[in-house]
Parts: sequence; C-alpha cells; structure tokens
Amino acid sequence: MKTFIKPQLSDWSTLTSRPTKETQDLQKIVLDVFEKIQTEKDQAIIDFTEKFDKVRLVSLEVSTEEIEEAKSLISEELKQAIQLAASNIEKFHALQREDVKIIETTKGVNCWRESRGIENVGIYIPGGTAPLFSTVLMLGIPAKLAGCHNIILCTPPNQEGKIHPAILYTANLIGIEKIYKVGGIQAIGALTFGTETIQKVDKIFGPGNQYVTAAKQVAQNFGVAIDMPAGPSEVLVIADETSVPKYVAADLLSQAEHGIDSQVILLTNNEQILNDTIAKINAQLKVLPRKELANKALENSRGIVLNSIEECITFSNIYAPEHLIIACETVENYIEKIINAGSVFLGNYSCESAGDYASGTNHTLPTNGYAKNYSGVSLDSFIKKITFQKLTTEGIQNIGPAIELMAEAEELFAHKNAVTLRLLDLRSKA
Amino acid sequence: MKTFIKPQLSDWSTLTSRPTKETQDLQKIVLDVFEKIQTEKDQAIIDFTEKFDKVRLVSLEVSTEEIEEAKSLISEELKQAIQLAASNIEKFHALQREDVKIIETTKGVNCWRESRGIENVGIYIPGGTAPLFSTVLMLGIPAKLAGCHNIILCTPPNQEGKIHPAILYTANLIGIEKIYKVGGIQAIGALTFGTETIQKVDKIFGPGNQYVTAAKQVAQNFGVAIDMPAGPSEVLVIADETSVPKYVAADLLSQAEHGIDSQVILLTNNEQILNDTIAKINAQLKVLPRKELANKALENSRGIVLNSIEECITFSNIYAPEHLIIACETVENYIEKIINAGSVFLGNYSCESAGDYASGTNHTLPTNGYAKNYSGVSLDSFIKKITFQKLTTEGIQNIGPAIELMAEAEELFAHKNAVTLRLLDLRSKA
Repeated sequence: MKTFIKPQLSDWSTLTSRPTKETQDLQKIVLDVFEKIQTEKDQAIIDFTEKFDKVRLVSLEVSTEEIEEAKSLISEELKQAIQLAASNIEKFHALQREDVKIIETTKGVNCWRESRGIENVGIYIPGGTAPLFSTVLMLGIPAKLAGCHNIILCTPPNQEGKIHPAILYTANLIGIEKIYKVGGIQAIGALTFGTETIQKVDKIFGPGNQYVTAAKQVAQNFGVAIDMPAGPSEVLVIADETSVPKYVAADLLSQAEHGIDSQVILLTNNEQILNDTIAKINAQLKVLPRKELANKALENSRGIVLNSIEECITFSNIYAPEHLIIACETVENYIEKIINAGSVFLGNYSCESAGDYASGTNHTLPTNGYAKNYSGVSLDSFIKKITFQKLTTEGIQNIGPAIELMAEAEELFAHKNAVTLRLLDLRSKA
Repeated sequence: MKTFIKPQLSDWSTLTSRPTKETQDLQKIVLDVFEKIQTEKDQAIIDFTEKFDKVRLVSLEVSTEEIEEAKSLISEELKQAIQLAASNIEKFHALQREDVKIIETTKGVNCWRESRGIENVGIYIPGGTAPLFSTVLMLGIPAKLAGCHNIILCTPPNQEGKIHPAILYTANLIGIEKIYKVGGIQAIGALTFGTETIQKVDKIFGPGNQYVTAAKQVAQNFGVAIDMPAGPSEVLVIADETSVPKYVAADLLSQAEHGIDSQVILLTNNEQILNDTIAKINAQLKVLPRKELANKALENSRGIVLNSIEECITFSNIYAPEHLIIACETVENYIEKIINAGSVFLGNYSCESAGDYASGTNHTLPTNGYAKNYSGVSLDSFIKKITFQKLTTEGIQNIGPAIELMAEAEELFAHKNAVTLRLLDLRSKA
C-alpha cells in the first residue's frame, strides 16, 4: 500500500484515479461465438462448452436428480446460513416495492405509474473454484419479487459436467427452476439469441470474467439490456481515532483478496491509524490463503492522510467507490455529505462482508467510478415502470388549449388536431 | 396502412416486428470527432459547428441578453401554456420521490436507501425547424427535482448562430443556466470529455438524429451513462365499437407525422372501426402540412382485426409499443394485463398529445421494443440510490456466524476474518 500524507489538492486527480489497464478488444471473438450460436443454437453451445470447459455435455439443463443430490451435499449449518441471508435480502428488497400513487395534475387529468416485472431475465453466475452462490441470492431474490416470469440461470460446468452444489441448493431454495450448464461468451450468446433449450431473455445480470463482460457489452447491440458496466471490485475505508485498526485491515483485505486488480483505499485524518492499520494488514496477510492475490491488489492501493473526515468524504465523492466504509464511532453527520458510492457501511461493526452476504443489501454494485451515474442492483433493476394517464372530458378541456399552442409552436399539426377534434365535439355538445 | 383480418397466430411474429432498416455504421465518424474534441476542445467544437451548422460562433454559451430577447419573442399565450405543462410535469415527477425507509432485517442490522441526484447531467435538444422545447421540460424538470448540481443543455444553432426562442424561454423558466450552442456528434463529445467552456457530465439525455444516437452509444465506452437506446417513435392504438374513428385517426396521424420511419399500429376487434378509421385518416391527411412524412410512415403501418380486445393486448405486449392508446370507453379491466409499454393512454379523451406535452407524464420513452426491458425517463433516471447499513454489536453477533459460513464456502477467508475478529472481541468482552 502506497501512503500519502496530506497530499496537495493538485494531486487528488491522480490519487482518485483507477489503475489503467490494457483492455484487450474481445469484440471480434464475441461476435464469432454469437454468430455460431445464432445459426447452430444448442449444438454451438455444446461445442463451445467442450472447447472451453473441457466437458461434452449430454444435457444442458440441470436435472431434478442433480438438484436433489446437491441438497444432500450441503451441510445443515450452511443451509441455515443461506436461509438467513435469503430472508434478509428478501426483506430489504421487498421494501423497495412502490405503491401506485395516482395524481390529478390538473382537474380531470389523472396520471400514475405501475411496475411490471421484466418478463424474461438471465442470471449469470461464474464458475471456478469459489462458487458464488451468494450472487444467486442477490439476483434471484429481486427477480422473484419483481414477478419476472422466466428466470434463467446459466453457470459453467466443471470438467465432470457438474455445477457446485451450493449454487444448485441456493437456486432451488429461492425457486429458480431453469438452470443451464453453460458459461462464458456462449452463455451470454444463448441468453441473447435463444436456442432450442435456452430461452432468449430481455435483460442479463451477473458478474463474470473479461469474456463475459465483453459479451454482455456486445449483447446490448442485439436488443438485450444489462445490469451495469463491470469493473474490478473496490473499497474505500474512512477511519479516525475511534476506528479499530485490525478491523480496518480485515475490511481492506476482504476486498483485496477478490483479485489482483481489486483496489482498496484507506483515508484517515490520523497518521497513527494509518500506520497501525498497515501493521495489522501485514500481520493478517500472512495467514490468508489468497495472500498472493491480496498482495498484488495492495500494490495498487493507497493509504492517505487528509486534514479532516469531511475532506475524506470529499475525496471519496470524487473517487465514487463501490463500497464505502465509514469506520468511525460517530457517523450520523457524514451521511448527507455522501454523494457518490455504491453501498455504505457505517461504524465499526458494519463490515463489508455483512453486505456481501447477509445483511440484506445487494452486493451487485457499480465499480470503476460508475457510482457517479449508476445505482447498484435493486428491485428496480428487474422492473419497468409504465406511466398511465386518463383524461376526462373536463381534463382535455382544461389542458387541451395549452397542448394546441405547444404543438403548433413545435409545428406538429397532427398533434394539435388530435386535441382540436375532441375540443370541437365537446363544445358542440355543451 | 396495410390491413390484416384475423391473421393466424403463426403470422404474429412478422406482424409484431419493426421494419428493419439499413443502419449505417457511424462509429468511425463519431470516434474521429471525439478524438479531435479530446485534443482541441473548444476549438474543435467551433470548427465542427462551422462545418456542420454553417456558422462560425464567437461564443459557445448563450448570453443573458439572448435569453432576455427570447422572452420578448414568445407570446403570452404560449408562455402560459408552457407554464401549465411545466407545473403538471413537476407535480407528476415530484410524486416519484422516494421516502427513506429503514428496515431492521435482523435485530441490530439496519438497512436503507437514500437517493442522490447525479451531479452532472447533459441534456441534448435537437435543432431543425421544429424546436423541441417540450423536451426541455421533460428532461430539465426531473433533473432539477433530482437535485442534479450541473445541468448542461446543448442544442445546435441555426445559420445565424441563434437558438429558437421557445427553447431558451423554456430552459430559463425551469432554471437551466448553462446553455450551449452546439449540436450533433460534437455536442455529445463535449459533454463526454469536457472542454474549456463545456463541463464533462456523468449522464447524457435526449433525442437526436442518427449521428447523435450513434455518438451517445459510443460515449458509453468513455464512462458516460445515457438515458436509453433510441429508435423511431411509435404508437399502438387498441379500438373497439366504443371508439371514435376520427379520434383514433388523429392519434395515429399525430405519431405518423414524426417521420417516415415512425410506425403506427391499429388493433381492433371490429372490422367496421378499422374501415371507418382508415377513411378518417385519408380525410385528415389531406390538410396536414407534414402529410408526405405521415404518408410514408403509414406505408410501414398496420391495421389488424383480432378476435377480442384481450387478444389485442396480448399482441401489444409482444410488440411492446412506446405509446399504447386504449381508445375504449371501458378500460379498467385491461390495465393489469398490460405488461410491455412505455406510456399508456386510457379512454377516448387521453390522446397521445396530452402526454407529449402537458398532462405531466414524461414523453422520453423506450421505442423499438425496448419497453420490454426499459422504463421511460422519470425522476429515477436522474438519481442514484445508495444503500446504507449500520450493524450494532448485537447485529454482527446475530448474522456474523452465517457470514462466516458463507464466506468460507465461497473460499473467501479474508471476508470471513473481518467477521471473526469482531465476534472474538465481543465474546471476550461479554
């Protein structure tokens, strides 16, 4: 971790920047895979899975037997933990439902919005050694609450053609019925175009490696929506003299262990806290299984002493972190000053892991500075809000003349005529 | 308008499709303009404006004098009409504010969301003969309500270097202070990268021609968000024996006059209504100033008789229209069946023009089938919702063990350790 003591304002632009990385242009690779999926459908998926995942599948869909087997492989303790997390996530996202509020903007003119679930959604869960079943909860639960008709989960199989039992258990627990053994670009292609087995969806959610990310970007050119642009995970911790260095160190490391391109930033008004935290990081790092990844990530990371906690928040708003931890005992005065952040953790006992797993908030959040212009995933991400209006004869008489004037000024005379015809009829009836 | 009487279900896929059009690949042109703006900034903007808009500007920013002059050029009647529309749009969008709701998901675990305006937003208003000042209302009012700090409006100048007074009057009325005379790709480039005069923004809103649309797409690769993908405007009208053919005809024409690629669809359970409406369209078309445009649009358009209004709604949900008019006297039973639509107009007096201008709903809506996966512009489009959480010592003790189990199962041991350290401390204190 590089440290900076009260850097000049002119250095902030560099200090709030992300490490630039060579991004390979994967568009050509994605388009080639997509083209093959459009013509050969399931066959293409099976062939690509053999090529990339080293297994020739007989069936793409996970069977009932495989689900049952998965249930038997998960410990009772882990099941209960997942159920607690699911319950909290459901409570928090259910609260995001919006009641229909009708407003009469002018007498006789009633307007309102109603929410409808996006009919077909795809959830991508990466494979690999660490099975991200927590992401199944984070995407599947709001999709269910939103009333999405078809929820389709794709995740790559291992070389035995199996899916990790924790993913299957979790998907089954929350009622996801369509689970397919397909990963990478070919999963995004299947969800974008549909195959004989896998249904085309309207929106694709979920994290993934650079291939999946590129495929989601390209999929947008074919009419599919995506959750948000992806980037490496990151945390910014603000600490003062009431913070506990070993907790701060643990929170920074829990971000750093995600991958070598993760970024962690510590801001404090207290140099001693910075030094103590770095000492605790070094001690904790030693016993961490993923210490090599974390160590690499720490090389990109910064510990910065600023003049005050207010200044730390100003810095944080410029950086716009995915996760912001304010590890101070008193936090209330800072909340309204936070403008750009994905998810905020307040106080010494709100560790990022809480929100990653079980407090109820969503862990699919904007990274790479996108907290300036995007919200994290929520119930909103799975619905559309349709506006409705109903005008009575009084309503059109009240606003009709204004519409006529405005349409005429915009030189849209058919727009004007649609009102004029109605007003004439009403006047002749009166 | 092509007509179809009770077509077979197998034909629905063709009948619900949009006309395919050759889209020119403008990415190269956009990237060239963007590159010049990144290096030459204001100078590039002035040069491109001379090239494309045929005017060499001395100043990019609209002056106070120009605003005052615009005010004097707008009639009192039009001012009042714009004020009525502004008032209704403000009422409807203010209703979309979300109260902060705190939920204790588990004892000691409090979670909530707070909304923050996106700090810097750009509003693009096209030029041309018809000045779209109504779009200034539709984008500027929610931006103001959201609390966006910097609202920047770009619109191309005419060959005299002027902006239409209705646009200036409207922008000034709702409190937009930064108005720049720049259009086309160069406007989107200025908003994406910033120049000496024009500030870089976080999100760009607004309609435009194919160049503006392409530029907005490309801008997304440079960290900017956009309102939604763009496409030609469209309306679908559902009519039964209680509909008034001349009103239906006027509503269809008010969409058709937008441009030759507009699409209008009439669905009905009553062949007589179809025939009567077509007769009225032909009569109204004759006196329309934009009849050539409308006539071309009608060539792409369809009048279809189906078996019932329920079937019409099923068809409409597959088509996912930007505007849906249910021109029937009794509409209540149909509302909950509407799944995919941008904005819905109910009954014989809710013409599309009402929502285009003055009822209060937003007219920036998803086209081209995107009503399946996107909402129209609303207050939500101008805010981010940040999640917050605060755990007490009781809270972390209640959910900590579940987090430890889940983190371990995902093989993220630093995530687990962040909880373990806290739980150990609390146990030793107890």
